[in-house]
Amino acid sequence: MRFTIDKEALMKGLTLVSKAIPPKAEIPILSNFKLDMTERGLEITGSDNNITISTVVPFMIGEKEIIRNSQEGSTLVAAKILIDVVRSLDDEFVTFELADTSLLRIENSRSNFELNSIRAEEYPDIDLSIVGASLTLPGKDVQALAESTAFAASVKEARPILTAVNLEANNFKLTATATDTARLARKSIDIESDVRFVANIAAKKLLDIVRSFEEDDEVTIAVNEKKAVFAFGNSVISTRLTSGDYPNTKNVFPKVFNYSLEVNSQEFLKAMERASILSTEYEGVVKLMMDQDEVKMFSRSAILGSAKEKLNVFQYSGEHLDISFKASFVADAIRACKCEDVTISFVGEMKAFVVRNIKDDSIEMLVTPLRS
Amino acid sequence: MRFTIDKEALMKGLTLVSKAIPPKAEIPILSNFKLDMTERGLEITGSDNNITISTVVPFMIGEKEIIRNSQEGSTLVAAKILIDVVRSLDDEFVTFELADTSLLRIENSRSNFELNSIRAEEYPDIDLSIVGASLTLPGKDVQALAESTAFAASVKEARPILTAVNLEANNFKLTATATDTARLARKSIDIESDVRFVANIAAKKLLDIVRSFEEDDEVTIAVNEKKAVFAFGNSVISTRLTSGDYPNTKNVFPKVFNYSLEVNSQEFLKAMERASILSTEYEGVVKLMMDQDEVKMFSRSAILGSAKEKLNVFQYSGEHLDISFKASFVADAIRACKCEDVTISFVGEMKAFVVRNIKDDSIEMLVTPLRS
Repeated sequence: MRFTIDKEALMKGLTLVSKAIPPKAEIPILSNFKLDMTERGLEITGSDNNITISTVVPFMIGEKEIIRNSQEGSTLVAAKILIDVVRSLDDEFVTFELADTSLLRIENSRSNFELNSIRAEEYPDIDLSIVGASLTLPGKDVQALAESTAFAASVKEARPILTAVNLEANNFKLTATATDTARLARKSIDIESDVRFVANIAAKKLLDIVRSFEEDDEVTIAVNEKKAVFAFGNSVISTRLTSGDYPNTKNVFPKVFNYSLEVNSQEFLKAMERASILSTEYEGVVKLMMDQDEVKMFSRSAILGSAKEKLNVFQYSGEHLDISFKASFVADAIRACKCEDVTISFVGEMKAFVVRNIKDDSIEMLVTPLRS
Repeated sequence: MRFTIDKEALMKGLTLVSKAIPPKAEIPILSNFKLDMTERGLEITGSDNNITISTVVPFMIGEKEIIRNSQEGSTLVAAKILIDVVRSLDDEFVTFELADTSLLRIENSRSNFELNSIRAEEYPDIDLSIVGASLTLPGKDVQALAESTAFAASVKEARPILTAVNLEANNFKLTATATDTARLARKSIDIESDVRFVANIAAKKLLDIVRSFEEDDEVTIAVNEKKAVFAFGNSVISTRLTSGDYPNTKNVFPKVFNYSLEVNSQEFLKAMERASILSTEYEGVVKLMMDQDEVKMFSRSAILGSAKEKLNVFQYSGEHLDISFKASFVADAIRACKCEDVTISFVGEMKAFVVRNIKDDSIEMLVTPLRS
């Protein structure tokens, strides 16, 4: 194996693939990058046995030569060290050469590294083929699905299925749902194909995956019983599905509401932020007190004191209502709506309520109130 | 007590004073700010019993009114909460009013906080008077002394005196020295007064103190047996001295050298950084190999491999010399010199060597080599 490669292009590939490589690999061989110089370019692969990332650095990017003087071959090399070495190099190009099966030489005009390497054959077989139901759509749509919902997944490992985002394709819609049982976030987008699948993907992994897409990438998602594969640009990411059945959340959203509050997102967020400063003993619980002509927030701490906030901009319809909730849950929901004004619709004092983007009904958030 | 105050000016004062207040105060009363509305303005005081910071927010800054509608009085209020509350406020001005001895009201057009407060009389007496030998000089000179030396102080508590920077005024010079016994950093500046004092100040505290000075502040340093006081702008910081005798480091610098290497700081730092990537087992030790026509660096790891670096820009005088050292110690020394080119002067393979700014002999760094 031998090649001279553009340092920045190599670094970009290594950085993407390194997201799959854990700081301390339980299976030692997985602390390595697999490098394959092939006829497509330099293929870089990394895996933690749950998630696998593979990317190809091509010979040319547009008019620019990226790889030259190449000879095919493969090797494994310690991921952390290779990243540190390549990042530290000064020249525009760097030459890799496998001196023998256990020595990878990396050099430019000033530097000469000889890294111990391992035979590529020792790497586990990893299948990155795209099998199962599949769907192609703009990467930014998949990003929006993940980022509007992942925050609502549980962070507790007690019920692993709740740490996942439930991704379901059905009836020309792709829907993401996440819940920790105290709140739920859902977003749907229309799709052109009649594909059907269900994939439960760990929320953190899903965020990592969608943040790897570049601005204009088209993404193909393929799902079978065991894994989901995301293919985009020159890269493929495969992730194991979270096992277990996702709870049925089809009918959790109330249909009839008795109270409705329309507010400016920013003003409401700031008022909640201030009110919850004093709510340290109660995990940031605030009480919202609503009348047609006045909307206030209140919080109290036996140790610290109390806080009262008045809203300037609102529209409220319904009788007087007091309702208490965890401020951070409502703040997450409002931020996920990404809009200037939100509607919060209530059924009653102790019933779950709904946060919605006034102008976009593809996204809805459910929050359970607390006793005040 | 009552006053209406400019939020930004108040926040700046609180932020400065909060540096003295520990996240978890061992003496509970010290988790509070002391606020005194006086005829000078709003005095804010905080202390962890070792370091005390006091600042005055004045009635006017230039033409701008900062405090209005004030009535004198004092109170104590939880520091962390007050900072969070003031930071979160929206309006330009905020009004404080002591409603009774245990309730501080903080309000503007939208927000109304009622914070539990404590009688000011319960705060310990803190003497911030400037007594002892004193000296006034530009704040940036004191900053330079601290930042050129503090990194070399010990981080181990085994010998507390070595965690301090030794600040000595003598013979019209102010000299800062710090050492962890494996390396030593020293910088002197000329002063106009014949004041004499010695102050050992914990390195981290000294850095906090000098980073509180603003661009053009003149700073008065006063030292007695127990404490050092730094007065600047509207603020005073007092710190307890580290007890114990500082080791005698007067004659540690060699006077005669047999080898001398002049290098470009940036090139040398980058080469060391690369070479030390592979030196994980040996705490970043690299070997420098010098001849008149070639200067190289080398490092090796049994597990990872080896690295070689060539310097392009250097001037070396002396016989061939190999010398090994901890790269981070030499990097710290070069960075502290803050200059384009440095001279490294050697006595022999196992003798401490000296790093100097070619153009400024007020600063010198000593590093002990290691066996390679």
